[in-house]
Amino acid sequence: MASIQPLGQRVLVKRLAADEVSAGGIVLPDTAKEKPQEAEVTALGTGGKDDNGNDFVFTVKVGDKVLISKYGGTEVKIDGEELLILSESDILGIVS
Amino acid sequence: MASIQPLGQRVLVKRLAADEVSAGGIVLPDTAKEKPQEAEVTALGTGGKDDNGNDFVFTVKVGDKVLISKYGGTEVKIDGEELLILSESDILGIVS
Amino acid sequence: MASIQPLGQRVLVKRLAADEVSAGGIVLPDTAKEKPQEAEVTALGTGGKDDNGNDFVFTVKVGDKVLISKYGGTEVKIDGEELLILSESDILGIVS
Amino acid sequence: MASIQPLGQRVLVKRLAADEVSAGGIVLPDTAKEKPQEAEVTALGTGGKDDNGNDFVFTVKVGDKVLISKYGGTEVKIDGEELLILSESDILGIVS
Amino acid sequence: MASIQPLGQRVLVKRLAADEVSAGGIVLPDTAKEKPQEAEVTALGTGGKDDNGNDFVFTVKVGDKVLISKYGGTEVKIDGEELLILSESDILGIVS
Amino acid sequence: MASIQPLGQRVLVKRLAADEVSAGGIVLPDTAKEKPQEAEVTALGTGGKDDNGNDFVFTVKVGDKVLISKYGGTEVKIDGEELLILSESDILGIVS
Amino acid sequence: MASIQPLGQRVLVKRLAADEVSAGGIVLPDTAKEKPQEAEVTALGTGGKDDNGNDFVFTVKVGDKVLISKYGGTEVKIDGEELLILSESDILGIVS
Repeated sequence: MASIQPLGQRVLVKRLAADEVSAGGIVLPDTAKEKPQEAEVTALGTGGKDDNGNDFVFTVKVGDKVLISKYGGTEVKIDGEELLILSESDILGIVS
Repeated sequence: MASIQPLGQRVLVKRLAADEVSAGGIVLPDTAKEKPQEAEVTALGTGGKDDNGNDFVFTVKVGDKVLISKYGGTEVKIDGEELLILSESDILGIVS
Repeated sequence: MASIQPLGQRVLVKRLAADEVSAGGIVLPDTAKEKPQEAEVTALGTGGKDDNGNDFVFTVKVGDKVLISKYGGTEVKIDGEELLILSESDILGIVS
Repeated sequence: MASIQPLGQRVLVKRLAADEVSAGGIVLPDTAKEKPQEAEVTALGTGGKDDNGNDFVFTVKVGDKVLISKYGGTEVKIDGEELLILSESDILGIVS
Repeated sequence: MASIQPLGQRVLVKRLAADEVSAGGIVLPDTAKEKPQEAEVTALGTGGKDDNGNDFVFTVKVGDKVLISKYGGTEVKIDGEELLILSESDILGIVS
Repeated sequence: MASIQPLGQRVLVKRLAADEVSAGGIVLPDTAKEKPQEAEVTALGTGGKDDNGNDFVFTVKVGDKVLISKYGGTEVKIDGEELLILSESDILGIVS
Repeated sequence: MASIQPLGQRVLVKRLAADEVSAGGIVLPDTAKEKPQEAEVTALGTGGKDDNGNDFVFTVKVGDKVLISKYGGTEVKIDGEELLILSESDILGIVS
C-alpha cells in the first residue's frame, strides 16, 4: 500500500466526512468567505530546520483532528482515498 | 462539548453582542472603512517560537475584552456559537 | 469609563481640533496627496519585543503632540470621543 | 553521455509514466487545480549553505519517488529523456 | 514657534528655491522621469535602532544641502514654511 | 582586448552554439515555457559577502558548461562576441 | 564647483560617450530589452553598514569603467554635466 511522507514542515491530512466531525459539532457558517474544514492528521513531515536553524518540532501529532484553512495545500489521492498535503502553518487549530 | 486549541500565535475570540460591550461604551463610527469589533478572548494558541527563536508569550489572556480588526481571522461555529480564530497581531488593543 | 490599552507597538491618539493645534501653527497644504494630521498621544501599547528580540521602547510618550500619516491606523470611538489606534512607526514626528 | 549536476538546493527528477507509479497507486483527482505529479529523483544539487549559514542537507535521496507540485521547475531533455530541475522545496512528499 | 522632531530614521528638510541652489549649479534635466530636488536638512529624527539592533547614526547633519528623490516624504507647513519629512534613505546624496 | 569582471555574485557566460553542446546532447523541448540554455562560464564575479556575512564562494568555475534559465541576465557584446551577465543563482545546473 | 557625495551604498557615475568606450569595444546588441551602458565611476557613497552590521566596502573605485543596468539610478546634472546616482548593486561589472 502506498503512503506519503510529507517533506519539511508539511503534514498529510484527511478531510472528515460530515458524520465524523467532533462531538458537539463544529459547523461553519455558510456565509464565511474563507471556510475552514475539519480534518485528521495522518502523517507529519520530515521537519527539517526552522528559521533560526533549530530542529523544527511539529505542534500537531498523527490522529489530531484539526481545522484547516481552505487555501494552501495540495490534494492527492492514495489508494482511492483523497488526502491533502499542507503546511502545518495552514492549520488553524486542534479540535478536542 | 467540542473546543478548539488555536495553533501557534493564534487566539480564539467570541464577538460581543451590543449589550455586552464594555461600560462607557466603545462605539465605532459608521463611516470607518475598517471597522474594529469588540470581542472576548476564549482561548490562546499553542504559542511556539517567535522570530528570534524564543518562546512566544501572549500579551492577551483568556477573558480579556479586545478590539479586533475586521480583516484577518476565520469564522468557526462551535456548539452553535460563532467564534473567530485570528492571529494575536490582529488584536488592536485590550479594552478595560 | 472605558479605555483601551493598545497591543504591541501601537499607540492610541486623539486628533486635535483646529483650535488645539500647536502655537505657531502647522498647517498642511491642501494639495498634499498624503496629508498628515496633528494628534495627541493618549496611550502607549504593550510594547513587546522588537525585531532583534529586545524589549521595544516607545519614542513618544503620553501627551506628546504628533504628526500622523493619513494611512494606517483604525478609528475607534470611546465614550463619544473619536480616537485612532496606529503603529508608532506611522507617527512622522513630534510637534513641540 | 551527458548529465546534469543541479546547482544549489535544486534536484533533478524524472517524471514517472503511468505504469511506473507506486504500488497501491497515487492518483490525483482531475479536479485538483494544482495537480502534483509523481517523479523519481535522479540527482541532487550542489547544496551550498542554508539561510543560517550551515551546510544545506537534502532530505530526499537519489532513487526516491516523490510528489512534485506543478509549479516551479524547468524542463530539460538529456539523451532524449525529459527531466525536470526543481528546488527541493517544491517536492511535496516522498512516496513509499 | 512650532517645530517638528522627526521620528526614527526620518529627517526634516526644506526645499531650496532656485536662487539658493549650490554654486556651480545642480540642474536636473527636464526629461528625468524621477526628478531629484535640492533641499536643506533642518532636523534629524530620533534615530532609534537599525536592523541589527545597534543605535542608528545619521549620515547627514543639520545644514547639509541634499538631493532628495521625488518619491517618499510627506509635506508639512510650519509657520508658513513648506517642509518635507522623509526617510534618510530617500536622500540620494550630499551636495557640496 | 576588452573584458568584463562581473560584480558580486554575477558570472559572465557565453551561450553555446548548436554544434558546441555537450556530447550526448541536452535538447530542450520546444514546448517548454521557460527554456533553459546551455552556456559556458567565462568569468566569475567579485563575490563579496553572502547573506550571513561570510565570503561568497562560487560553485561554478570558468570553463564549466551550465544550463541557464531564460530569465535574469543582461546581454553584452564584447569584441563582437555576445555574452550574458547573470547571477550564479540563475544557473540551473552544471553539464558534464 | 558643485559636487555630490552619494549617500550610503550609492555611487555617482558618468555615462561614457561612444568615443570613450573601452578599447576592444563593448557594444550592446540593439535587440537587448534591458540595455546596459558603459560609464565611469566618479564618486563613491558614504557606505554605512551592510545587512550584517559590518562596514560596507565598495567593490568599485573612482575611475573604474563599469557596465550599469538601464534601470535604477537617478539622473542629475552638475555644472552642465549629466551624471547618474545609482546603487552599487546596479553595476553589472567592471570593464578592463
